[in-house]
Amino acid sequence: MMYAVIMAGGSGTRLWPRSRLDRPKQFHKLTSDRSLLQETVARLDPAIDIGHIYIIANESHGPAIKEQLGGLPVSNFVAEPLAKNTAPAVGIMAVILHEKDPEAAMVVLPSDHYISRGDKFRRLLGIAEEVIREDEEALLTLGIKPTCPETGYGYIEIGNEYKEIGEDKIFRVKSFKEKPDAETAREYVTSWRYVWNSGMFVWKAGTILSMFETHAPDIYAGLQEFRRALGAPEESKVLEKVYREFPGISIDYAIMEKAEKVLVIPADMGWSDIGSWSALHDLLKSEEETNVITGSHIGVDTYNSLILGGDRLIATVGLDNMVVVDTDDVLLICPKGRSQDIKTLLDRLKEENKTRYL
Amino acid sequence: MMYAVIMAGGSGTRLWPRSRLDRPKQFHKLTSDRSLLQETVARLDPAIDIGHIYIIANESHGPAIKEQLGGLPVSNFVAEPLAKNTAPAVGIMAVILHEKDPEAAMVVLPSDHYISRGDKFRRLLGIAEEVIREDEEALLTLGIKPTCPETGYGYIEIGNEYKEIGEDKIFRVKSFKEKPDAETAREYVTSWRYVWNSGMFVWKAGTILSMFETHAPDIYAGLQEFRRALGAPEESKVLEKVYREFPGISIDYAIMEKAEKVLVIPADMGWSDIGSWSALHDLLKSEEETNVITGSHIGVDTYNSLILGGDRLIATVGLDNMVVVDTDDVLLICPKGRSQDIKTLLDRLKEENKTRYL
Repeated sequence: MMYAVIMAGGSGTRLWPRSRLDRPKQFHKLTSDRSLLQETVARLDPAIDIGHIYIIANESHGPAIKEQLGGLPVSNFVAEPLAKNTAPAVGIMAVILHEKDPEAAMVVLPSDHYISRGDKFRRLLGIAEEVIREDEEALLTLGIKPTCPETGYGYIEIGNEYKEIGEDKIFRVKSFKEKPDAETAREYVTSWRYVWNSGMFVWKAGTILSMFETHAPDIYAGLQEFRRALGAPEESKVLEKVYREFPGISIDYAIMEKAEKVLVIPADMGWSDIGSWSALHDLLKSEEETNVITGSHIGVDTYNSLILGGDRLIATVGLDNMVVVDTDDVLLICPKGRSQDIKTLLDRLKEENKTRYL
Repeated sequence: MMYAVIMAGGSGTRLWPRSRLDRPKQFHKLTSDRSLLQETVARLDPAIDIGHIYIIANESHGPAIKEQLGGLPVSNFVAEPLAKNTAPAVGIMAVILHEKDPEAAMVVLPSDHYISRGDKFRRLLGIAEEVIREDEEALLTLGIKPTCPETGYGYIEIGNEYKEIGEDKIFRVKSFKEKPDAETAREYVTSWRYVWNSGMFVWKAGTILSMFETHAPDIYAGLQEFRRALGAPEESKVLEKVYREFPGISIDYAIMEKAEKVLVIPADMGWSDIGSWSALHDLLKSEEETNVITGSHIGVDTYNSLILGGDRLIATVGLDNMVVVDTDDVLLICPKGRSQDIKTLLDRLKEENKTRYL
């Protein structure tokens, strides 16, 4: 059986001030009248039944998840006691699914990405499952065909062709590359041999567990301890204990870069990680209307701008390429080209002890 | 005795959205912790006793005036039933003061201007009173020595020297000029023969009344009717009646441009009419700090900007030469150079029937 594991532990700081520690990006309605998390779940229909969809996130977000995903069985939400990057979360979910179904295949998905072509995405999931059922050792990742020399993503170098299924090709992964500089990114994009690392993976739960055993034995020990406590009264106590001991490490770094049989399907499905306000603007704007505006607005000579408001009237004159995001307690104004610098603002807030705004 | 008449009927639309129909510019604390109206009253101390200061404004602003000017005798607030520009208001106040004191001298002042050098201002008032006491026919205006080729003001062309008192010279007025184009304004400024028309006047109440009789007999008839009703039960009813009949006309146009003996004292006293957000920014910024900020703000690379906030945090990245004005129900964002275009925004609001924001 195929299960989805949605990783909803991200903090989405780059979409501050909408995205906040107590209600990060994935819980916000940024691209439609559903939140990114709701979209992520809906996008799996009909490929994966809601009963087979699991969410792992910080326990403080449990109420928001229950509120947004009414149809999800309560036990399908797994509360992380601490944020420890993606490897521990993947491991814990693999244990749970493997215990439930030793043949379980799992697709790991970020909760806060956008995909315009859901049909294509679901088709690729089907192909991915086919591949890992045939070759149980395989770890498969969905790579995104790059559309620009983005320096904010990791890249995957494509190796030899592994298989062709219908019109889609699966390749061996030659290497994982850290975020490149602009020059290197340009080379990557024009070479047609690199795809973006989307953080979407498909594998058998048993396979990824044996990879932990080989490549991340410290984490594996904790996973085994957790497995023994599964269903017992002390389960959550043990989970907390092993989490405290887990290193904070990504699944890419812990496993993917080390494993032997890593495959990639280059995907072209209208993907965006919505990694900045600028990216959201690019996603939502159209040829006819360069402004993207929500809420009450009145403008004179206002172009190419993202203006996210609410009840209050936002009045603009002579704005071009600007981002304006209004919330109850914070207002952000910056040029589109500076929307990556929000990190600096947040650092400043921490320095000034204004953490209530984070 | 010298009396001050503060004209507080302005709507201050260019400082929207702080300045609103129900609480225009003069009631706001823009330059200090006192409102412009409060500053205007305080600036007269000790030249004119508070008991001799009168305010004329729309009756709807009575409560705001009483709230802001606790020391002002209640009877010193005169409620205009309608807005009819400055000539009717000056006429009505002249009647009231002349009836109270046939020798009354009156200084007419806008309620929403800024003057940094109050001592100089008060000295000029003293000189002005000396002049009109000696020459009872004189109408005296305070002209502002121009500091830039401003196209938003009327100009006064200076004629022959009339008198010298201490280090100040009084001139005859040669002509009044409408708002000039940029080229003409440059000629005016470099000629040293023009000053800005500030809307500040000094004259005897009896003199201006006889000028109404000569140059604006239609208004004078209404003033006479009002004078007969003064102190009678029907006073306010008569005031309303004559106001309905008054033309909406400025004192400049009704009297100043026609009278024979009009004098001007060129004044250099740090004056501004705060006619735009840009003007307020120029007034308040300093060499050391080019931003002018109120309220809670956090900024990265933010320069030359006016950011007027309140309780909400305003976060800015990469702003230069911008105006941001936040209020409970409206947020304004525009480049400094476009702050005169607020008028266009207000027209748009009217078109869209969003008059609650005016």
